[in-house]
Amino acid sequence: MDKILFEKIAEEVKPFFGKGKVADYIPELKRVDPNQFGVSLVNVDGTEVNFGDYKTDFSIQSISKIFSLIMVFSKVGKELWNRVGKEPSGNPFNSLIQLEHENGFPRNPFINAGALVVTDLLVSNSSKPKNEFLSFIRNLAGNEDIYFNKRVATSERETGFRNAALANLMKSFGNIHNDIDQLLDVYYSQCSIEMTCNDLAKAAICLANGGKILDSQAVLSLSQAKRINAIMMLCGLYDESGDFAYRVGLPAKSGVGGGIVAIYPGKFSISVWHPELSRYGNSVVGMKFLEQFTTYTDLSIF
Amino acid sequence: MDKILFEKIAEEVKPFFGKGKVADYIPELKRVDPNQFGVSLVNVDGTEVNFGDYKTDFSIQSISKIFSLIMVFSKVGKELWNRVGKEPSGNPFNSLIQLEHENGFPRNPFINAGALVVTDLLVSNSSKPKNEFLSFIRNLAGNEDIYFNKRVATSERETGFRNAALANLMKSFGNIHNDIDQLLDVYYSQCSIEMTCNDLAKAAICLANGGKILDSQAVLSLSQAKRINAIMMLCGLYDESGDFAYRVGLPAKSGVGGGIVAIYPGKFSISVWHPELSRYGNSVVGMKFLEQFTTYTDLSIF
Amino acid sequence: MDKILFEKIAEEVKPFFGKGKVADYIPELKRVDPNQFGVSLVNVDGTEVNFGDYKTDFSIQSISKIFSLIMVFSKVGKELWNRVGKEPSGNPFNSLIQLEHENGFPRNPFINAGALVVTDLLVSNSSKPKNEFLSFIRNLAGNEDIYFNKRVATSERETGFRNAALANLMKSFGNIHNDIDQLLDVYYSQCSIEMTCNDLAKAAICLANGGKILDSQAVLSLSQAKRINAIMMLCGLYDESGDFAYRVGLPAKSGVGGGIVAIYPGKFSISVWHPELSRYGNSVVGMKFLEQFTTYTDLSIF
Amino acid sequence: MDKILFEKIAEEVKPFFGKGKVADYIPELKRVDPNQFGVSLVNVDGTEVNFGDYKTDFSIQSISKIFSLIMVFSKVGKELWNRVGKEPSGNPFNSLIQLEHENGFPRNPFINAGALVVTDLLVSNSSKPKNEFLSFIRNLAGNEDIYFNKRVATSERETGFRNAALANLMKSFGNIHNDIDQLLDVYYSQCSIEMTCNDLAKAAICLANGGKILDSQAVLSLSQAKRINAIMMLCGLYDESGDFAYRVGLPAKSGVGGGIVAIYPGKFSISVWHPELSRYGNSVVGMKFLEQFTTYTDLSIF
Repeated sequence: MDKILFEKIAEEVKPFFGKGKVADYIPELKRVDPNQFGVSLVNVDGTEVNFGDYKTDFSIQSISKIFSLIMVFSKVGKELWNRVGKEPSGNPFNSLIQLEHENGFPRNPFINAGALVVTDLLVSNSSKPKNEFLSFIRNLAGNEDIYFNKRVATSERETGFRNAALANLMKSFGNIHNDIDQLLDVYYSQCSIEMTCNDLAKAAICLANGGKILDSQAVLSLSQAKRINAIMMLCGLYDESGDFAYRVGLPAKSGVGGGIVAIYPGKFSISVWHPELSRYGNSVVGMKFLEQFTTYTDLSIF
Repeated sequence: MDKILFEKIAEEVKPFFGKGKVADYIPELKRVDPNQFGVSLVNVDGTEVNFGDYKTDFSIQSISKIFSLIMVFSKVGKELWNRVGKEPSGNPFNSLIQLEHENGFPRNPFINAGALVVTDLLVSNSSKPKNEFLSFIRNLAGNEDIYFNKRVATSERETGFRNAALANLMKSFGNIHNDIDQLLDVYYSQCSIEMTCNDLAKAAICLANGGKILDSQAVLSLSQAKRINAIMMLCGLYDESGDFAYRVGLPAKSGVGGGIVAIYPGKFSISVWHPELSRYGNSVVGMKFLEQFTTYTDLSIF
Repeated sequence: MDKILFEKIAEEVKPFFGKGKVADYIPELKRVDPNQFGVSLVNVDGTEVNFGDYKTDFSIQSISKIFSLIMVFSKVGKELWNRVGKEPSGNPFNSLIQLEHENGFPRNPFINAGALVVTDLLVSNSSKPKNEFLSFIRNLAGNEDIYFNKRVATSERETGFRNAALANLMKSFGNIHNDIDQLLDVYYSQCSIEMTCNDLAKAAICLANGGKILDSQAVLSLSQAKRINAIMMLCGLYDESGDFAYRVGLPAKSGVGGGIVAIYPGKFSISVWHPELSRYGNSVVGMKFLEQFTTYTDLSIF
Repeated sequence: MDKILFEKIAEEVKPFFGKGKVADYIPELKRVDPNQFGVSLVNVDGTEVNFGDYKTDFSIQSISKIFSLIMVFSKVGKELWNRVGKEPSGNPFNSLIQLEHENGFPRNPFINAGALVVTDLLVSNSSKPKNEFLSFIRNLAGNEDIYFNKRVATSERETGFRNAALANLMKSFGNIHNDIDQLLDVYYSQCSIEMTCNDLAKAAICLANGGKILDSQAVLSLSQAKRINAIMMLCGLYDESGDFAYRVGLPAKSGVGGGIVAIYPGKFSISVWHPELSRYGNSVVGMKFLEQFTTYTDLSIF
């Protein structure tokens, strides 16, 4: 696979520009230029293939959920699963219904409720959770130049009544241990992190590389890396996870900033970014690019 | 009807002492002596029949929802129904499910979500909502000696994550307009009010007396009073409203402090208090007393 | 109250003609002339006030649920409540959700699931359930000239997959005892019965008259009659029961044929008919007529 | 991998015998000897590794859902997805709730509702659906000696009120086209098929082998085979799919007869059988065997 293939597919996905809708629930996200498109593939040997706006920062949003999961899983191990499940949620939206029905135990770490529990564990296990999380991501990506976007974090917090509802409901069931205001502050900071496609692909390479980052430092065991991939496969693209598995066939995680990062175990990680979203919250052009990519290369895991 | 009937029925309900369970979710309520039992009936002409501990203060809890409803209905009129419904909720517990399914529009003013909206309207229409509410209740009951219990209010607030979840969820739908912390402060203060059976029966007489309190001052129109009775009939006893209508046949409202106040339109209000609750949150002995009372006197509205 | 009042109100409700929609799920109902309107009030002393098309037959549909309830309650007594509840359903449509959540125990006898259980009890307690039910209704109304409409019954059965789903689901929980085909045959026959406003008011007079029909024969005890009124009050108009209680203030039951029958305990029953329905399935003009009627006469029970 | 590994793992899973519970909802299944255990692995080159009771017939139950899906997908292609989804259901039991909420469109072909739609398409596209299905399976497995078990089929039909409810509900939404009695007859016949572990592994090899069966005949395209694997990965083990993906990491499908068949794309299919089930309906010993197998061999797809 090389840059020529990326160029060919980039041409093929052009008709999909304009089919989705830029996230508009906060002003900061709405302001993004929808014509930006980047791809970055990083092999486990450190070689790269890049395309388009792969050096432009964007808001990683829910993709941060993989990084907090990696960090907390490596810190607390299996006991994590006493606080959050590993099953798909099967719910068309970010819902309180299932959470209430299942007594405050979220179905998986990639729905907001589950990610809040993961962040709660991070807060419980860290004296300066925000700093520590940022350092962790910088280390994963091998790039010190990664930051929170305070305006995005503040903006999300001011409108995030549903997340506050989720956190309070789980606290009523005893499944949030820290102060809710602090928890939401850390959570929204995580979501507000800005990275490039290339940063993202590098930061996720540990999942393709048996738990090791590019400089060979192990952040997870092989078994832990495989298990996070399994959860991404089943739950990584909201209520479009099944469709993504069907069309693309790789474990992946998306964010409403328009990024998607996917993993081919043992080989590479690939990150795509285009800001326009499907009604399920995933980048339309990004999904299409990955579909074409695995079709041409036959590199799905199925 | 006279005191002899009350004594007879009080004897008959004795076997039901111990069948329920004192509310234990906050220490203040748990500490109540479960052997207290009081009844007070106030006729529209001002005459009274009383029994037992009818002069003992107890926590009115959700019974406060009638008084905030009366106050807000008299202030804002029908526009209230743009913010909250009048249909039974049909849900076995104080649930977020229906609220989410129905986009943050609570089914009626007697479930917590609906009462929070009523309190939100109270806050929007009052410069000192807590003071004004307390004055309103004192005027209804003709008793200046009624107070909030700060320890109860504080205690409920510290454990009230589910109510915070409800308020946040409704705010995410735009159906809460004020600051959530202020809203919950007013709400828990209302619930913490302490009154006697006699206070309660007097404060509710306006609903039996076409909107007028005992000194003939009108707080509601006849039509408004009838309408509040209709809502109490359908929704006043949580998920036991149907059973209460079937067995007792009077509009009523209960609270987890063990109080119940019921209305016979045109004739009287009657208040009973015994702290032990059914699994639905209503006083077991109180319900039984009222059942026997309407059976002997044939004074149900059906 | 007299015919002049009826004429006055009939004039006032004219602007509401055309606001609702005739039931169209089966051809037979769809064909009804929407300009027909009738009212019949029957006092417990047998005197009557009638208006308009009060002698025209129409399909009583769900109003039959009161008559099957009366018949089965008088046959089996309280044990009925081991099979069906008395609480409002609080669900915007005729739903399987609550039924599944509550293990096949329907919330009340006026939702379809509950009425199917009542009919199942009728089948279990009768050798010729259809004949016996028809005789029972004829006796209540004092009119031998009342029949099933076979085309309506057949038509409903052929399209009634949701009722078949409800019956099968309850059977999976053990709460239907008879063969489902037979059960649905009896059920749809009941719904297909045609009566006039005057028949309906007479047939329901037992609920206003302490359980006795006009010739003084008791079909229910006083207590049983009151209790059916209580259930009608809370659950009689589908998911518009609260609004009807608020606006009209009488126990009542409606059907998608456009009929409504309401009770003033101790005084009268009143039946109205106009075929155009609100989105909840109740006659728009009928509800408005009853609202004006209780407003002018002050004859609500609240 | 060889027989010695199978023997080693078989020893390790012995402590899990007796931990699950044999399916008891029909007498035929309940009667099975719980001490039987078999494994069969078939490579795409036709070589095999077998262990234990791999030649004993058992009831394949829901594993039949892969075979009807393969048959119908190959017949009707993508239009299948207009009738059934590809998303996980996220529901702890075989529920009507989601189906009603989503207007009769089942989430995926492996929940009962979705499998009923697949069978409905099979009936619509076949003159003798039962015969044709049996021939199709025999061809997949390369074994003419495979049969329906009529007693099992009859038994399931007589107690299958929930499936009848599902079918009726979907028919009320227009998503079942054939007669419900015929549909259920075909459906229960499919479930009643009896096969050995070896039959199952052979019949599923087409999913590991790019759509081809062992004699090289193509029953699916490569792309179709991959896509069925994707759906199995996300939805194959009821509400334990996430846990299975986490622990085992292979696309698979289970049945309440105690069988599980799993696929390693490009390499092999493996079938295990032990009749005792977890509370989610999957073979406890079977799952444990596969977990150890992918742990020792590192042959998960993640």
